Amino acid sequence: MSLQPTIPTVAVIGTGVIGRSWIRVFARAGCHTRVFDPDQTQQSKAIEWAESTAAVDERLGFLAVGGAATEKQRIAPCASLSEALVGAGWVQESGPEALETKQRIYRELDAAADDAAILASSTSAHDMTTIASGLSGADRCVVAHPVNPPHVVPVVEVLAGRTTRPDVTERALAFLESVGQTPVEMHRYVPGFLLNRLQAALIREAVSLIGSDVASAAAIDAVVRDGLGLRWALMGPFGTGHTNADGGAGEYYRRYGDAYRALWADLDATPEFSDRVIERIHSGTEAMYGPDSAAAVGEWRDRLVRGIRRLKADDPAPTPETGGA
Amino acid sequence: MSLQPTIPTVAVIGTGVIGRSWIRVFARAGCHTRVFDPDQTQQSKAIEWAESTAAVDERLGFLAVGGAATEKQRIAPCASLSEALVGAGWVQESGPEALETKQRIYRELDAAADDAAILASSTSAHDMTTIASGLSGADRCVVAHPVNPPHVVPVVEVLAGRTTRPDVTERALAFLESVGQTPVEMHRYVPGFLLNRLQAALIREAVSLIGSDVASAAAIDAVVRDGLGLRWALMGPFGTGHTNADGGAGEYYRRYGDAYRALWADLDATPEFSDRVIERIHSGTEAMYGPDSAAAVGEWRDRLVRGIRRLKADDPAPTPETGGA
Repeated sequence: MSLQPTIPTVAVIGTGVIGRSWIRVFARAGCHTRVFDPDQTQQSKAIEWAESTAAVDERLGFLAVGGAATEKQRIAPCASLSEALVGAGWVQESGPEALETKQRIYRELDAAADDAAILASSTSAHDMTTIASGLSGADRCVVAHPVNPPHVVPVVEVLAGRTTRPDVTERALAFLESVGQTPVEMHRYVPGFLLNRLQAALIREAVSLIGSDVASAAAIDAVVRDGLGLRWALMGPFGTGHTNADGGAGEYYRRYGDAYRALWADLDATPEFSDRVIERIHSGTEAMYGPDSAAAVGEWRDRLVRGIRRLKADDPAPTPETGGA
Repeated sequence: MSLQPTIPTVAVIGTGVIGRSWIRVFARAGCHTRVFDPDQTQQSKAIEWAESTAAVDERLGFLAVGGAATEKQRIAPCASLSEALVGAGWVQESGPEALETKQRIYRELDAAADDAAILASSTSAHDMTTIASGLSGADRCVVAHPVNPPHVVPVVEVLAGRTTRPDVTERALAFLESVGQTPVEMHRYVPGFLLNRLQAALIREAVSLIGSDVASAAAIDAVVRDGLGLRWALMGPFGTGHTNADGGAGEYYRRYGDAYRALWADLDATPEFSDRVIERIHSGTEAMYGPDSAAAVGEWRDRLVRGIRRLKADDPAPTPETGGA
C-alpha cells in the first residue's frame, strides 16, 4: 500500500474499539498519529493492540516487511487533549455515543485545536448540526462514520452539518481517500445513515423468515454468504442490475419494477422478534461456529476481508475507460 | 475440486442462461450430463458456451489441467426429451417460467423419466405443489432454484411440494452438495423464496435513499461493495451478530433489538420508483462502469467470485470443533 495522505498529522481522540482501529488507518497510511484518551490505561492498551495487529498484518503479507515497525514510530501517545491536538490537521473523535458527551468533547476540541484543523466524529447516531450547535468552529466539523473495524473495512460515511463549509467536506472526502478508505457522501441526515439502514432492511426480512419458520438461521446465513454476499463484495445492487440487462441498470429496473413492487408488498414490516426467535438465531449460529468462537471468527473474517480487498486491488472492476474493451 | 456426485447421470432440460450453467455444474463435478432443448440451435450454442467457459476456467486455474477436455467428454447433446432422460437419476428442468409451460413439461418428464429419477425445477416463482399437481410422480418432484449463474454462485434453494417424499428432498440436498453447490432447505413456499426476498428488502431501501436524495447511486453501491458485502461474502447476518458480542448472536440481537425496531419503523415501505429514480440509478451506474460494459463487468465479477470462493476454501471459517482453538 503506497499512500500519500493529504493531511500529514492527525489526532485520534478516544481509543475504544473504533478509535484504536483508526490509529491503524492513519499510522499505516503515513500520518503522524497523536493519540489521546482520558482513560490512559485504555490508551496504552489500544496502542499495544495497534502495534500487535500491525505485526500480524506484516506476517500475513498485508504490510511490507518493516511496515509494522514504521507504523509504530508514527504513533505518539499523549497525556492530555491539548498535547494530542498540537499540529493536527485532522481530529478523529471516537468518544462515547451520548449526545451531551459528544457536545462537551466538541466544545473542548473546538477551543483547543488548530484553527485549520477539521474535527471529524465517528458517531453512528448524531447529526453534526446537533453536535456542533453553537460552536464558533461549527463550520469545520463533519461526521466521518466508519464501519467496524475501519482498518479492515474501508467505507466511511461522510455527513456535513448544516453549517459545515463545503470545502471542509471536500477536504474530508479527499483526505479519507488518501489514507486508503472509501468515503461516501451523504446529502442529509437519516437515522442509521446508509449502511445501518441497508443492513437493517435485510436483517428485518431475515428475522421474519426465521420467525415464520420458512428457513433456519443456517439456511439464511448460507443464502447471504454463498449467494448475495459473493456478488455484493464486488458490486452494489445498482451495479448488479447493470450486469443483468444488455441495456444496463435502467433497463433491468424498468423490466423488473413490477416484480420488485409485488415482492416489497409481501415483505414483513414488523416481524416477530421475541426471545423465542432470538434463541433460534442464537442456537443456529452457535451450531455453525461453536459457542466461544466470536474472537476466532472475527479474526478469520478480518483476514479474509483483506484477502478479498487484495483480489479487487489486483484485478479492478472495469471502468468507463476500460469497460468496453 | 474433487467431487463425488451421489447421482452419476443427469439430464439438463432447457438450455437458456440457467440451463447452460447447470451443464457446467454437473459435468465439472463428474456427472454424465445429457442435454436437451427443443430449440436445437440454442442447445448447440449452450454446449459451445459450456465448453468455452470451461477452457477459460482451466486457463485461470479454476479447473485442473485437462479439466476442460474431461468436462467436454461428459456432455451428451440429445435430439429428443426421451433420449436425454435415458439413465438419468436427476433431471434439472430450466424451461420458461410460465406455469402452464412448467406443468406441461412436468407431465412429459414424469411420463418419460426413469421411475427412480428426481425431477428438479430451476423455477424462481412457482411452488412444486402447483407445478406437479395431479402427476402420479408428484412425490419425486422438488424445486432446486439456483442463483445465476450456478456454476459460479453455489447457493441452491430447495423446496419440497406438499406431496414430495421426504427422502427425495434429502437426496436432493445430498446430491447438490456432492456436486459442489450450497443447497439450503426452505420449509414452505413464500414468493421470491429466500434470496430474492432478502435482496428485494435491501434494494427497496437503496431505491428509497436514491429517490429521497440522501445519497447517490455510486455512494450506495460503495457502501455495499466496500462495506456490507465484504462481510456478507464471508458470513450472513446471524454469523455477523455472533462476532459482535462476547455472548454471541443472542446477546447481540437482545442488546440491539430496540435499535433495530426503531430503524425498521423508519424504513420506507413504498419508495418512489419512478422513471426519474430509475434514470438516476441508470446514469449513476453508467458513470461507474461505462455504457457498454455489462458483459465485461459480468465476466470480471464471475472471475472474482471464484477468487473469493477459493479464499474461503483455502482458509475455511472456524467450526464448533475448531472455533474455540
